[in-house]
Amino acid sequence: MIIIMRHGATTAQIANVTARIEQMGCQAHLSQGEERTIIGVIGNGRPIDREQIERMSGVERAVSVLRPFKLASREFHPMDTVVPINGVSVGGQKLAIMAGPCSVESHEQLMETAQVVQEAGAHILRGGAFKPRSSPYSFQGLGEEGLRILAEARKATGMPVITEVIAPELVPLVTTYADILQVGARNMQNFALLHAVGESQRPVMLKRGMMATMEELLMAAEYILSHGNQRVMLCERGIRTFENYTRNTLDLSAVPMLKQLSHLPVIVDPSHSTGKWELVEPMARAAVAAGADGLIIEVHPHPEEALSDGAQSLKPARFAALLQSLKPIAEAVGRTL
Amino acid sequence: MIIIMRHGATTAQIANVTARIEQMGCQAHLSQGEERTIIGVIGNGRPIDREQIERMSGVERAVSVLRPFKLASREFHPMDTVVPINGVSVGGQKLAIMAGPCSVESHEQLMETAQVVQEAGAHILRGGAFKPRSSPYSFQGLGEEGLRILAEARKATGMPVITEVIAPELVPLVTTYADILQVGARNMQNFALLHAVGESQRPVMLKRGMMATMEELLMAAEYILSHGNQRVMLCERGIRTFENYTRNTLDLSAVPMLKQLSHLPVIVDPSHSTGKWELVEPMARAAVAAGADGLIIEVHPHPEEALSDGAQSLKPARFAALLQSLKPIAEAVGRTL
Amino acid sequence: MIIIMRHGATTAQIANVTARIEQMGCQAHLSQGEERTIIGVIGNGRPIDREQIERMSGVERAVSVLRPFKLASREFHPMDTVVPINGVSVGGQKLAIMAGPCSVESHEQLMETAQVVQEAGAHILRGGAFKPRSSPYSFQGLGEEGLRILAEARKATGMPVITEVIAPELVPLVTTYADILQVGARNMQNFALLHAVGESQRPVMLKRGMMATMEELLMAAEYILSHGNQRVMLCERGIRTFENYTRNTLDLSAVPMLKQLSHLPVIVDPSHSTGKWELVEPMARAAVAAGADGLIIEVHPHPEEALSDGAQSLKPARFAALLQSLKPIAEAVGRTL
Amino acid sequence: MIIIMRHGATTAQIANVTARIEQMGCQAHLSQGEERTIIGVIGNGRPIDREQIERMSGVERAVSVLRPFKLASREFHPMDTVVPINGVSVGGQKLAIMAGPCSVESHEQLMETAQVVQEAGAHILRGGAFKPRSSPYSFQGLGEEGLRILAEARKATGMPVITEVIAPELVPLVTTYADILQVGARNMQNFALLHAVGESQRPVMLKRGMMATMEELLMAAEYILSHGNQRVMLCERGIRTFENYTRNTLDLSAVPMLKQLSHLPVIVDPSHSTGKWELVEPMARAAVAAGADGLIIEVHPHPEEALSDGAQSLKPARFAALLQSLKPIAEAVGRTL
Repeated sequence: MIIIMRHGATTAQIANVTARIEQMGCQAHLSQGEERTIIGVIGNGRPIDREQIERMSGVERAVSVLRPFKLASREFHPMDTVVPINGVSVGGQKLAIMAGPCSVESHEQLMETAQVVQEAGAHILRGGAFKPRSSPYSFQGLGEEGLRILAEARKATGMPVITEVIAPELVPLVTTYADILQVGARNMQNFALLHAVGESQRPVMLKRGMMATMEELLMAAEYILSHGNQRVMLCERGIRTFENYTRNTLDLSAVPMLKQLSHLPVIVDPSHSTGKWELVEPMARAAVAAGADGLIIEVHPHPEEALSDGAQSLKPARFAALLQSLKPIAEAVGRTL
Repeated sequence: MIIIMRHGATTAQIANVTARIEQMGCQAHLSQGEERTIIGVIGNGRPIDREQIERMSGVERAVSVLRPFKLASREFHPMDTVVPINGVSVGGQKLAIMAGPCSVESHEQLMETAQVVQEAGAHILRGGAFKPRSSPYSFQGLGEEGLRILAEARKATGMPVITEVIAPELVPLVTTYADILQVGARNMQNFALLHAVGESQRPVMLKRGMMATMEELLMAAEYILSHGNQRVMLCERGIRTFENYTRNTLDLSAVPMLKQLSHLPVIVDPSHSTGKWELVEPMARAAVAAGADGLIIEVHPHPEEALSDGAQSLKPARFAALLQSLKPIAEAVGRTL
Repeated sequence: MIIIMRHGATTAQIANVTARIEQMGCQAHLSQGEERTIIGVIGNGRPIDREQIERMSGVERAVSVLRPFKLASREFHPMDTVVPINGVSVGGQKLAIMAGPCSVESHEQLMETAQVVQEAGAHILRGGAFKPRSSPYSFQGLGEEGLRILAEARKATGMPVITEVIAPELVPLVTTYADILQVGARNMQNFALLHAVGESQRPVMLKRGMMATMEELLMAAEYILSHGNQRVMLCERGIRTFENYTRNTLDLSAVPMLKQLSHLPVIVDPSHSTGKWELVEPMARAAVAAGADGLIIEVHPHPEEALSDGAQSLKPARFAALLQSLKPIAEAVGRTL
Repeated sequence: MIIIMRHGATTAQIANVTARIEQMGCQAHLSQGEERTIIGVIGNGRPIDREQIERMSGVERAVSVLRPFKLASREFHPMDTVVPINGVSVGGQKLAIMAGPCSVESHEQLMETAQVVQEAGAHILRGGAFKPRSSPYSFQGLGEEGLRILAEARKATGMPVITEVIAPELVPLVTTYADILQVGARNMQNFALLHAVGESQRPVMLKRGMMATMEELLMAAEYILSHGNQRVMLCERGIRTFENYTRNTLDLSAVPMLKQLSHLPVIVDPSHSTGKWELVEPMARAAVAAGADGLIIEVHPHPEEALSDGAQSLKPARFAALLQSLKPIAEAVGRTL
């Protein structure tokens, strides 16, 4: 950490900061410039709270030298993490395709979708049983009934299943039915939930909050990893900006940036981010070209009748064609489908 | 709702949309312009899902005529809501001042702070027992021990106590110690938590998420209100922008805008939003001038030793002086302190 | 246009609005719902100012049915625009690659760069002579001397040249040397400049402002098109968000969205948007996969000595390798390089 | 400046950076931590280009110790700047009230408005003659005719006049009629214009761009100041966020923050930022309470007939009442009206 003192900081203030640092078991290293005094801190391995230093008298700013995440960082773990999930691997040379409806609506709807996405080439089945909806008057999902239908579809197809968990007390229930626990964008900093999915030791897909920085996403991953659960996948699903022709702004530069900062696999969701099915196809192709480790795509056999988010769902035929079109792009970046 | 069909929408597509609307028990009203066909929907009192319409073939956009919140709206409830909390009222002519440390750190620290903020004129004591922190390595609060200390301070001073609840399963515990349940910015769309605090029938202060629109804040309030819990207070605490000289951007225009849209009291938090104690005083004054119903301010007897967010805490003497300076401003806008 | 009256709007207010609309030569069409009166406006072909209506008493909102841009819209001009520039075409089946240094620094630097980018496969040479810099103390470009060097490089290589013009009075000067006038992000809404480049009848590349919506970008293009200058190219170069690991957030979903809304070619700038050379390559590949019509990439023979923005410049060898890697992706989306 | 080398930076890379620094006439000061090498730079008074350092091999980040603006900083000029403008002072103990219509529409309209705002207590008359409009089809202002009308109103009332200048070549013309040159939000980084108004030596009001940070605003002011023109006023007019109930988000925390960073007066525009006349009054009061040095408010005798931005204009009677309501707030913060 580097501490920049205010212009005109007194000798007493500087001595005070130095004393505090040494009290923490660190070394302080003074550098007296013409306009500012700078104090370099040589640490003892434990993180120093930047804010605690910044509130001391005479301090202008403190700059962290190290990133605040450790277990999630590529420095700590240089090799790519590959997450094994009941026969499917995420993060390796082969791309992982997750597909299915936004919400599980019925046995028939899910079974039909599961079969078509599997035939088209998907590896993992998605479907929401507990739906976080911004209005209390919207369809909130089938709950446990939805989980049971997911488990039936898994049994029928052999595909692992991913579904969202929205509260810590639901983790045991969801764990009995699903292979991957999804933490949704709105819950990325629901720390009680992060603890619970960390404890579960199940594969987790953590979606970036729509107002979250990459650093905050990696800190949220750090919560899960700190419980010894190493099967964590990150998911970029669009951030909120002032633009309103698209629902959110898909930040594809997060893909190579996250992969440079971290060893964790990065999945891209082109459906929720754009909110428009016409944009799902080009953005899915772009995501693969940017180096994503997988995609999560909404497919619905009859999007016009979908109970949630049908506007962004692909019909099965378009989904099958999309996967075909991804192949040469995957190859061009050294991956397979 | 008004439905704008695409340029060149076919007669069949238009008929399809009309049929769907009538099937919902609503009336469709066609208006054929030169460039677009517009379908006006005359409702039956139940909300129509905009997205469900937008995914139909030939539809360009659907525009809601009514706001999506009802119980929270001033149209539904024209008079200001006044929330009574064990002897203190929030939302009436008298401003409510909530003050205290970011975190409860010890019995001594809280007792000392409680006394000084009460002497200065505060009405409600704040203090965090469960702290949502972006790093798993930061101090996470004293937990139930913190709640016990809060209850002791309440007993000693008579002041009602506000503290954050971070998970649905903690609501019963927090309710046994605290007078007001705070839902933090990161949990504004933690719907499981909103349900739980709605069920609790306790006064709730709901903080605007740092990426939330006012509409989303009011929809989150609608969740709580829909459980019959009418003691809801809104809190503006800054939104995230690209600006980085301040921690967040305090959106004071939200105060008069929310009060125009809704009957619920609006509290302003000048401490978390700015992240800098020097800005707390001018922004507290500005909040009162903008029409806020109250303030929540961090005060710490020794901010340099605070375990969290000391950089934004006022010392007791400054807090007392601030309250004095608010009096003529409160009077100027027809309020008292 | 559709006008939504406030709840409780009086008969006089409604009559007033209706009268105003008829006075404009349009027809008003009343629809009395239970909660709101809606007035549909059937136009006479001329745009109606939404804000003028919204300020009338009793009006809650006015919703435009048509997009505010016309000449730039695909509805008006369904076929893709192909911009011919001295032997190079932008917007057709073949991708256009623009490359070169951020700033023209010297005859040697530009000549060396021009040759290597041409050999690697670039079609158009970029280089800044007038540099808009946020600090008055930064290098502001070589000015006319830079333009002369660009013209020499064009003569030597045969490549058309693109360079930025930063003020209306410089348009005649820049036009004598350059083939394409670039309007920078900071000048996207410099309307005096838009008029001047419109009048020039030269090809223009218009960069999206870093706070601009797509609608505003298309309205800025409309300014240029309204002068009869049809050779307009749009350029996505990143928007400002709260994320700070990347300089800006490259909005690749703007590529398919803009191409759906408009017939104008869309170029992507992966260099300025990310600010990091390591991200230029994956984002260039992603841009092609998303359907971009071309790329503008910074290349510098010795980035460590560059006078501006070297951090985002590729070395010649990497640039050549990048173009090779784009080929299969271009093919996969039906394009050639 | 402090340079943080990458984890694993080689001795050669470190030596290279050190050599470059010494070549610039600065001293390098090495600090070898366990995880990173840090190089402190002790400067020679001239600014170092951060980006130039960041592009060197082995460098992770460079952190500037000093702010990039100098002439605009309070460190350089500790006392408040008071700008004298033909008998009115901006930045002193007395608040400056600027008022008038968005656009000059006619002699009658401006004369009527000028008289009522002067009677109500305004000191400076505002009115747009050249209007930057996002649509080429919107009213663009009366141009020189509008300037002539402004000059007549000045003659009749004795009030100084402020109006926007939108291109460098218009500066001489506007200067012959107006007392204060306004640089609009969209032109805040139109550097050619900043040079021109700097050269003019006339009082300038510089509006913060809707995507600009405070640092960029102060850098834009630095451009003007660097021409020896010291009569610069800053204006906060709202920034763009995702919120859409208000047109922009008025950032009132910028008022105390800018006044801490800089000696220049800060004016607040509650009209353009909110876009709604109902919000103008509370936000004007809040701005004064936050410490603003003045306000610029739109007033129109007949807002429903205004040719631009009538939705945010106050009627004369409300404006007069607003100024009365500001008096006790001004007093409470040690100012007069």
